[in-house]
Amino acid sequence: MSEKTAVTPPTHAAPPARFSHGVRKGNVLQVAGQVGFRPAVPGQPPSVAGPTLREQTLQTLANVESVLAEAGAGWDDVVMMRVYLTDVAHFAEMNALYDAYLADVAVPPARTTVYVGLPEGLLVEIDALAVLD
Amino acid sequence: MSEKTAVTPPTHAAPPARFSHGVRKGNVLQVAGQVGFRPAVPGQPPSVAGPTLREQTLQTLANVESVLAEAGAGWDDVVMMRVYLTDVAHFAEMNALYDAYLADVAVPPARTTVYVGLPEGLLVEIDALAVLD
Amino acid sequence: MSEKTAVTPPTHAAPPARFSHGVRKGNVLQVAGQVGFRPAVPGQPPSVAGPTLREQTLQTLANVESVLAEAGAGWDDVVMMRVYLTDVAHFAEMNALYDAYLADVAVPPARTTVYVGLPEGLLVEIDALAVLD
Repeated sequence: MSEKTAVTPPTHAAPPARFSHGVRKGNVLQVAGQVGFRPAVPGQPPSVAGPTLREQTLQTLANVESVLAEAGAGWDDVVMMRVYLTDVAHFAEMNALYDAYLADVAVPPARTTVYVGLPEGLLVEIDALAVLD
Repeated sequence: MSEKTAVTPPTHAAPPARFSHGVRKGNVLQVAGQVGFRPAVPGQPPSVAGPTLREQTLQTLANVESVLAEAGAGWDDVVMMRVYLTDVAHFAEMNALYDAYLADVAVPPARTTVYVGLPEGLLVEIDALAVLD
Repeated sequence: MSEKTAVTPPTHAAPPARFSHGVRKGNVLQVAGQVGFRPAVPGQPPSVAGPTLREQTLQTLANVESVLAEAGAGWDDVVMMRVYLTDVAHFAEMNALYDAYLADVAVPPARTTVYVGLPEGLLVEIDALAVLD
């Protein structure tokens, strides 16, 4: 049986429920839905990077990257990104930030972007599926 | 070519469209979106476990588990759960039920929770991605 | 390290952001969220197949199929379809079109259907996960 391991970057607070920020099993690395929380400070509640789409998108992408890195992986391993926004009007700005963040990725992951509800104050959530070796 | 097999627990009625409740191909087992339908009774239409989030969440998790079990798998094989709720106000209660249900899972799956529309009367839908050997 | 390749059917215009219409890595082929855009015409902006659910659903499924085919894959390789609709009232009609389109698939993929917001004029979006050999 392939081993299953949780991936928990030191920057990440404990999740709000019984799930893992990342899970590796076999050749699959799944990154849980990340939001724009700043690196965790022990003893303090989660803190959103800021109220703007820009601040939250950049922090969210950094949080996805932290999980990948903790698993010894990177953007080149990611096959799919799921981007959840709350407002169609945010699409263009998110894309500009996204494109800049992933500018150096030789083969960009596939992606689906849909518009959903998120907890109050959150404008973006992103998860990622990676395939390792 | 790796064989592809449908996974259909005896508790499950035929899906409302041409999809499988579970599919195994290669090392991947995908569980389709499950909702709070009680075990199927031949000749009767699907019946929701009840109007409450509690009833539906527990039945939905049991339905995911049935598909896993029918494929010879279990929670330890699941790398990702996608939880769809209709109301942000349901997050805390769903989490409490979810945490209790998965209390004995050594490495909890990753998870993404978003708020969407669902057919009338349904409060929660969950699908799962598992990696087998 | 398993090679990662982008899958871009000749029918598809460049994506609106830094993502790939399809990505193959290891045994996984991920198809990005497809919508009802007609085959691209060089020098012209993307054009939706039509305003109706029928037109968009059929074009969207054809676009998913194009990505699969470009990767040398087909519906028999797909384990999961994610269908995003904007209106619960569209479920029955989408199902009828979907069932006819996939009528010859021996083992239908698993599926999750949820109701979300999409960019103006789009009624359906579909992505797909396939497992190859």
